[in-house]
Amino acid sequence: MTLVSANMSMSLDGFIAGPNDGPEWPLGIGGTRLHEWLYDLESWRAPHGIEGGESTRDAEILEEEISSAGAIVMGKRMFDIGEPFWGANPPFHAPVFVLTSKEQPMITREGGTSYTFVTDGAESAVARAKAAADGKNVSIAGGANAVQQVLRSGLLDEIQVQVVPVLLGGGIRLFSDDGGPQVELARTRVVESPDVVHLKFRVLN
Amino acid sequence: MTLVSANMSMSLDGFIAGPNDGPEWPLGIGGTRLHEWLYDLESWRAPHGIEGGESTRDAEILEEEISSAGAIVMGKRMFDIGEPFWGANPPFHAPVFVLTSKEQPMITREGGTSYTFVTDGAESAVARAKAAADGKNVSIAGGANAVQQVLRSGLLDEIQVQVVPVLLGGGIRLFSDDGGPQVELARTRVVESPDVVHLKFRVLN
Repeated sequence: MTLVSANMSMSLDGFIAGPNDGPEWPLGIGGTRLHEWLYDLESWRAPHGIEGGESTRDAEILEEEISSAGAIVMGKRMFDIGEPFWGANPPFHAPVFVLTSKEQPMITREGGTSYTFVTDGAESAVARAKAAADGKNVSIAGGANAVQQVLRSGLLDEIQVQVVPVLLGGGIRLFSDDGGPQVELARTRVVESPDVVHLKFRVLN
Repeated sequence: MTLVSANMSMSLDGFIAGPNDGPEWPLGIGGTRLHEWLYDLESWRAPHGIEGGESTRDAEILEEEISSAGAIVMGKRMFDIGEPFWGANPPFHAPVFVLTSKEQPMITREGGTSYTFVTDGAESAVARAKAAADGKNVSIAGGANAVQQVLRSGLLDEIQVQVVPVLLGGGIRLFSDDGGPQVELARTRVVESPDVVHLKFRVLN
């Protein structure tokens, strides 16, 4: 069964990026703190083409997320900020569907990554990603707005949050306060590692 | 050593009360969901004068928080909304210092609870609570604004959050995004119970 899942590193105060994010500060001021737990992991380094790294429980959880994803959905802002860094051989190695308002031809990169630009909304992007995933899962890579759109459309099946022990005091929140529907969750797993706590939930619709 | 600590039930999306909180909906729409894990606990019922209840790990953690607190600090809004419910024999059984802008005589209730109104800021309220706590801890009972004031003043030593598996979509956030200082935390304990995850942190100043 194809599950639609999101997996995000979040500060205890709910931010996935610090203040003033943009090309200069891709994760906002202080935001790289949220991803520090990743950079030494073997399962983070391999898809980025970097050798070595640690094989910890964190690495296993990341590997589980990566290997289960057959297609990716992301927002245009994340794409615009990330693309210069991801370069010729991006770390996705799977078809990526980018939520945007402007049509644009598909881009094909090395290593199995392609970027398809979807202009008719989150439901369409998820449907196309499901078809492309070939029985594997669809991963909502971010940003927060993309996760919120998929959640609001009722299509998100599970969410895993890595709670990072820091308060960023501002930035981009994973969850909005726009009065969206109240959603009950079922916690399915808690894993405590030295750097983060992995909290995994199923979305009960 | 007297520690200043806060202990709050929070939805995964960061709210400690749902939308439209006030006298009619003390915890906002959907907000009582955040406290459901408490009502059957023996250590919640006893200070409220209700017999019976469960002796679970949740009950132990709550008991630990209650028994370690020698004095309480709370905001005026929480006081105004809560006072009609707490009544003649409030559940605090300790001196309570209420952060407010308007002077008001101290109120003494049954069972060891008193309400002292502090008009010269969070630092003063914490100092007075520390003096009254007689070597025990000072508990910041809420609401969010009181916790934020104490955090911003650099006087918060630890924070425990009960993550409740629900998205409220709006309401009162525990943590603000007003660009306060970025604060590193050290996670000191994770306890998984059927209803919530208890995440405890030390504030590293």
